[in-house]
Amino acid sequence: MQPTIDLNSDLGEGFGAWRIGDDDEMFRVVTSANVACGFHAGDAMTMTASAAAAAREGVALGAHPGYRDLAGFGRRALDTSPSEIAAELLVQLGALDGVARASGIRVRYVKAHGALYHRLAADASAAHAFAEAVFAYDPAMSVLGPPASELERAADAAGLRFAREAFADRGYLADGTLVPRGQPGAIVDDPAAAADRAIELAETGGITADDGSRVELRPDSLCLHGDTPGAAAMARAVRAALERAGVEIRSFA
Amino acid sequence: MQPTIDLNSDLGEGFGAWRIGDDDEMFRVVTSANVACGFHAGDAMTMTASAAAAAREGVALGAHPGYRDLAGFGRRALDTSPSEIAAELLVQLGALDGVARASGIRVRYVKAHGALYHRLAADASAAHAFAEAVFAYDPAMSVLGPPASELERAADAAGLRFAREAFADRGYLADGTLVPRGQPGAIVDDPAAAADRAIELAETGGITADDGSRVELRPDSLCLHGDTPGAAAMARAVRAALERAGVEIRSFA
Amino acid sequence: MQPTIDLNSDLGEGFGAWRIGDDDEMFRVVTSANVACGFHAGDAMTMTASAAAAAREGVALGAHPGYRDLAGFGRRALDTSPSEIAAELLVQLGALDGVARASGIRVRYVKAHGALYHRLAADASAAHAFAEAVFAYDPAMSVLGPPASELERAADAAGLRFAREAFADRGYLADGTLVPRGQPGAIVDDPAAAADRAIELAETGGITADDGSRVELRPDSLCLHGDTPGAAAMARAVRAALERAGVEIRSFA
Amino acid sequence: MQPTIDLNSDLGEGFGAWRIGDDDEMFRVVTSANVACGFHAGDAMTMTASAAAAAREGVALGAHPGYRDLAGFGRRALDTSPSEIAAELLVQLGALDGVARASGIRVRYVKAHGALYHRLAADASAAHAFAEAVFAYDPAMSVLGPPASELERAADAAGLRFAREAFADRGYLADGTLVPRGQPGAIVDDPAAAADRAIELAETGGITADDGSRVELRPDSLCLHGDTPGAAAMARAVRAALERAGVEIRSFA
Repeated sequence: MQPTIDLNSDLGEGFGAWRIGDDDEMFRVVTSANVACGFHAGDAMTMTASAAAAAREGVALGAHPGYRDLAGFGRRALDTSPSEIAAELLVQLGALDGVARASGIRVRYVKAHGALYHRLAADASAAHAFAEAVFAYDPAMSVLGPPASELERAADAAGLRFAREAFADRGYLADGTLVPRGQPGAIVDDPAAAADRAIELAETGGITADDGSRVELRPDSLCLHGDTPGAAAMARAVRAALERAGVEIRSFA
Repeated sequence: MQPTIDLNSDLGEGFGAWRIGDDDEMFRVVTSANVACGFHAGDAMTMTASAAAAAREGVALGAHPGYRDLAGFGRRALDTSPSEIAAELLVQLGALDGVARASGIRVRYVKAHGALYHRLAADASAAHAFAEAVFAYDPAMSVLGPPASELERAADAAGLRFAREAFADRGYLADGTLVPRGQPGAIVDDPAAAADRAIELAETGGITADDGSRVELRPDSLCLHGDTPGAAAMARAVRAALERAGVEIRSFA
Repeated sequence: MQPTIDLNSDLGEGFGAWRIGDDDEMFRVVTSANVACGFHAGDAMTMTASAAAAAREGVALGAHPGYRDLAGFGRRALDTSPSEIAAELLVQLGALDGVARASGIRVRYVKAHGALYHRLAADASAAHAFAEAVFAYDPAMSVLGPPASELERAADAAGLRFAREAFADRGYLADGTLVPRGQPGAIVDDPAAAADRAIELAETGGITADDGSRVELRPDSLCLHGDTPGAAAMARAVRAALERAGVEIRSFA
Repeated sequence: MQPTIDLNSDLGEGFGAWRIGDDDEMFRVVTSANVACGFHAGDAMTMTASAAAAAREGVALGAHPGYRDLAGFGRRALDTSPSEIAAELLVQLGALDGVARASGIRVRYVKAHGALYHRLAADASAAHAFAEAVFAYDPAMSVLGPPASELERAADAAGLRFAREAFADRGYLADGTLVPRGQPGAIVDDPAAAADRAIELAETGGITADDGSRVELRPDSLCLHGDTPGAAAMARAVRAALERAGVEIRSFA
């Protein structure tokens, strides 16, 4: 049976006159686009442009909600309550889904951003509030996030499809979490090495951890970064290698 | 045939820790609630509370989009392009509609706020961009706005239902526009006089202008203010007088 | 020797069209006004009005910086770095001090707001960054905050005058910290009881803790709340009682 | 007598994670830096970095205030009152001046941004409110702006030094205003041509308008753009040509 994988990236992360990353190029590489919804990045015009690009390129449109923190790009922990998390998810998801209709498409899934991503991985009550709000919006929506997280458990409990995300360019610890940035082995810089890891993840569902043990991640999607120098070249290299290896690249949504 | 009228008010216009007006009381008086969507006022929690109140009281939920200007409460003209107006409408409408689903209801209509309201009354290209965006969101959505405005023409052209708004507590010029604030006859302070004017508008579709001439407005809805001292008492007085006069009070949406 | 105490309150905490509390009344009761600087509340017009009121009433003007979180009113913990805390302090202090010049006065002291207040009480590196930034702005500036806190130590180390704040309407634990809200004895509702505690604090420098032990706080200032129903009446009662008891009410700054 | 000219550029126009232009390079070319103060761009960390760069490179630090419109980068007309313009100027000027103290320098002048720049050139009451607020902040502050504008008249009336700005890379009409963007001759793309025009402006005080007539501008400063591709190279070329021509490059402030 042919292995299948989705390729996702965080896109539409400009604001006003500002831009980050080469969205035009990345929309041609990925099958799923996590689009910023205005809280950590993104405004009505960037959301409109991203939805139009997703429609044009046949990419699944995902909402990428974050904390309400433009100045911190959603990367700073903010002590919001579960009910605020749920309400802010609905505002962001609804905003992008509203804009998407002008391009004739709809949002298909949700992936949290930055500090909210990390919070939902570990905080069960926040994860349940988030998953229940996604379900209230549309039970057919998928949630994309880290394997074996509180968010996966909450999505399961809410009756939502959960798509597991892995990183071809990041090292893993034996427990399936990422090697923290700044530690040896955290980042895989070499495109060829990242491509090999992408193939291994897609074909076997697992990867070798930093201690040599085997980690089973069973990913549905690989995250490709779009905001660093060389990011688009790395993304193209990974995609081309997957295709050469016979992996089908297709959205999970 | 029994005359019918809708009563609308701008509600949910707090932000964070701040509140304006007595929303609890006004939700019990009106049949349509124009709820701020985060650009001139409103946040995820105020939108959630307003949608819940609308669901509880059986009030039609309307989106009340404005310019992106929290510091100016959307009252200051801002030179946005028609495409920005369209995109920002979709963001605001989608946000409130997203939140509304958690209360089991949906947004039924749109009424613009403040400086955007005035812009859409007079600027044809802005009005068309706005109406087409509402239609793209949902062709069954209504638009509430000033009679005989560019917005009414744009809604008609887009194939949207347009509901005409009149004010029982404001004086009218012979051309159907309001006597500007600060001029004699601009404001009707007396609840009994306002109630009489509400009945006249509901029963006859017109009102006597400041020069004594007759203005035909054919309103579908009367706007009740909720943010001034005595506003809730005025609103209750108008509603009670309409009911005593045999006018049916019912949402247009 | 006549006992002396300052009375401070958080004022100017509106934003745009929104207001909190009865500032006009409170500016006539206090000797020090902690004025919001735009990050958790406040804008250019509210800052201008507050500085004008301080000049008119002869009240010492203080900057009341908070986290950049309008939607959360600065009450939510936000994981900022010490260098961000320092830079944001300078922005807020400079902004208010700039506005103050139009009223012919200058900012005399700084008191942090909300979650930042609590952070600076307990986080030494944040407190040192904050105090050093205040000193860089003006070595003659005072810092107002909780007794025996990391902020007091940091202000001392930076060479700044530190003014100790106590609350006449809050209960204290034996270690000098406040009884947490929601616990018995946290709030003193009765104006007469609060006035008695204010006199005890001003005359003796200490107060009886919830376990009956004596807490030495040696306060330079008592904080009066201005944003709750009855707040202005409570504030007036406390001030009048202090004056009757012969306590001199005078700014520490 | 040796001709003298200042070179200014709009810098520090990032926000949070976003950046525009090559500030590192531009700080080495200019003698005056107009630094965004948080309303159209800029935050506490970008202001801090810009002030540190100005101190390091010996560049005069200028405040670059704009309308409160991050999403529109201050380029959209916003109908603020003169009193709002004055108050917002003081907030922005004070904020940057506060941050500057941490680098041991102070703000020396003010140049308005975007739509506010154009408003102040033409709107006398706005210009007077702005100039009087600058004077209230510090009578030794300079104002940089377009020659023969309402702002020049207002600065003169307020008793402030006014520095006239010209553009080496823009065409001029016979009345001394710029050829509007989009019209032939609006932009001078060629670095050599721009350098020649810079020398002509510095040596003679005037330039040939698009109709062949002579326009006297008597500029104190030339504005160099830093935010377009090739901007830094253009700026370096203009500076080098001026130096070769014997023009002294020195801040007006």
